Amino acid sequence: MNGTKNTSISARAIVAHEPINGQPNWKLENVTLRDLKPTELVVRMVSTGLCHTDIVFSTWPKEAIPYPKVLGHEGAGIVQQIGSDVKNAKVGDSVLLSFQSCADCKDCNDGHPSYCQQFSPLNYGGEQEVFEITNGPKSAGTFFGQSSFASHTIVKESSITNVSSVAKDEKELKLFAPFGCGFQTGVGTVDKLTGAGKNDSIVILGLGGVGLAAIMAAKLKGCKTIIGVDRSQERLDMASNFGATHIINTTNPALSLVDEVKSRTGGNGSSITIDTTGNMGVIGNGMDFTANRGQMIILGVPPVEASLGVHLISFMQTGKSLRGSIEGDVTPSEYIPKMIQWYRDDKLPIDKLVKFYPVEEFESALADMKSAATVKPVLVW
Amino acid sequence: MNGTKNTSISARAIVAHEPINGQPNWKLENVTLRDLKPTELVVRMVSTGLCHTDIVFSTWPKEAIPYPKVLGHEGAGIVQQIGSDVKNAKVGDSVLLSFQSCADCKDCNDGHPSYCQQFSPLNYGGEQEVFEITNGPKSAGTFFGQSSFASHTIVKESSITNVSSVAKDEKELKLFAPFGCGFQTGVGTVDKLTGAGKNDSIVILGLGGVGLAAIMAAKLKGCKTIIGVDRSQERLDMASNFGATHIINTTNPALSLVDEVKSRTGGNGSSITIDTTGNMGVIGNGMDFTANRGQMIILGVPPVEASLGVHLISFMQTGKSLRGSIEGDVTPSEYIPKMIQWYRDDKLPIDKLVKFYPVEEFESALADMKSAATVKPVLVW
Repeated sequence: MNGTKNTSISARAIVAHEPINGQPNWKLENVTLRDLKPTELVVRMVSTGLCHTDIVFSTWPKEAIPYPKVLGHEGAGIVQQIGSDVKNAKVGDSVLLSFQSCADCKDCNDGHPSYCQQFSPLNYGGEQEVFEITNGPKSAGTFFGQSSFASHTIVKESSITNVSSVAKDEKELKLFAPFGCGFQTGVGTVDKLTGAGKNDSIVILGLGGVGLAAIMAAKLKGCKTIIGVDRSQERLDMASNFGATHIINTTNPALSLVDEVKSRTGGNGSSITIDTTGNMGVIGNGMDFTANRGQMIILGVPPVEASLGVHLISFMQTGKSLRGSIEGDVTPSEYIPKMIQWYRDDKLPIDKLVKFYPVEEFESALADMKSAATVKPVLVW
Repeated sequence: MNGTKNTSISARAIVAHEPINGQPNWKLENVTLRDLKPTELVVRMVSTGLCHTDIVFSTWPKEAIPYPKVLGHEGAGIVQQIGSDVKNAKVGDSVLLSFQSCADCKDCNDGHPSYCQQFSPLNYGGEQEVFEITNGPKSAGTFFGQSSFASHTIVKESSITNVSSVAKDEKELKLFAPFGCGFQTGVGTVDKLTGAGKNDSIVILGLGGVGLAAIMAAKLKGCKTIIGVDRSQERLDMASNFGATHIINTTNPALSLVDEVKSRTGGNGSSITIDTTGNMGVIGNGMDFTANRGQMIILGVPPVEASLGVHLISFMQTGKSLRGSIEGDVTPSEYIPKMIQWYRDDKLPIDKLVKFYPVEEFESALADMKSAATVKPVLVW
């Protein structure tokens, strides 16, 4: 069964070209979309969140990943066309976009699509020749099944969460874009992956969008001790406002993070530690101050080649567990509506994390994310 | 409050002297016991299991651990005297001996005494001058709260499980000695620490007493796939008899253990992997063939300085967890009676693992354990 012909669709897209001096080389360009396959949709984008992963995937050399390509993986928009086999949306529906999964492997069938055995090729890889740049070459697309840095884009059905009955209007939809990656990762890791509860002492290392969403989730789950750690006093103050019971500013090089956490947890350390920084020194501290039988969760992306040395005899004596989180181990189509309800109940004030930028100002959004002036930039189409 | 004076008690004990060429230097000697403290008991030993940990702690140099000392930590016996504060046993009671815990730290209070924050000093360290060798120096004791390589020994109350109402006679008591360490570690790790069930594919790496008890437990819990891995065909055949659905003999150097496990688990790998070998190469394989979201459990004792390099980005993508097991995360006084019941129900045929040796033949027992001729040697006093 064939898809729908849609050669007529023109769009604007932020195209990532080969990096210059290791920095993202993004340009807003006119493109056309290739034909639609049966399980794909064309979505008119309302907004797209900006995430560090978009930067990572536009700084690697062309030998590692092909250029040009369209990134973006926190999209929110309106369905404009559907492929012939699409079942979960119709034209005009509001959708939030998240990662893609194969729906066929054991992990997908067990209800854990973020650990899909095809996760890397489906999401990081995407497909070649999805867009054609006007007067230019073809460009890769379907990054995370969506490549949502485009006014109109081709989306895989497995990436959509249909929120037509949940989102009130385009204004809300615009705000909800980051639910599909950053916010669900922070909230899901606390709530679903670790199963945090009232007896837990939780440490969140790094207070970006993921980390602050994790603080909100820890408050929501009633964790008795919630410790936010960052180098920015502004972010730490935000964490306090969102429910952190303690904050630790690590700008002082003489400070021992291990001692500081232990002193705030009755000497035992944290029962749950979530690293969002990917910094190996910080991760090493986390391994040390996590309590006996505690969970150490790797969530931030460490350097590509980074290996964590685990001294086995001391590690096994403690009964600690080491585990990675991808997308908070959630099923987006079930979890995003749940998070929206928490937002409505004032338990997940994500509006306090978001700043909107017209898409033409994507350079400012990038700069503000890098400088930490903005927690979660969202580009508006 | 003082303990009971018991200078009259003479005993025979296997005393570990300073190792010779890195090998255990054990001698059966006459000793007397020091005075009893209020929370201690004198136990007349019926039998004591032999465990690799006893060997490890008699091969380290004297700079690391003092000699002479009395080892043994799988004791079974009859209470002969009690200290003035002892509450859980009276003279004449049958007791099985296990590890000691402080009963005071968070982990003990949470019901996880094997991760007691004082586990190492209490169990590996013990106390000096517990025994006095006739015509010789004083010797350390209370190894694992018991030092049960002695006809009579001083035992900490926290090490006892009172089985007076459970064990039928001294013959049974003699058989049950290894419940207090080796068997509870294998069974508890499968049953309690990992929570194995019918949907699990479990791999047991190494089929000593711990590994074969783990096979029995996996069968008992109904795991759908149970894979035993060893270099001894005799042990592999035993595993098959105890319920392994597959066995893998790793003597062929061309064999890829990762491929072999994957081919027996539908390409997914094992949902639970338990390493009892402490061999870093085998552990590395286990990390590789453990399925997405699977549990990799470190149970065997790796070399003292061994560090496992975990490549974080690939590890986090899989959602695997890495964790150590100490004593199967059980509370012996609750768990040993449960295992005895499983033995009675023919679900834990530990009698097929044990061989008895008169204590005078401890050298043969040691040799048979090293050569793998015997799975679990038990010395009879």
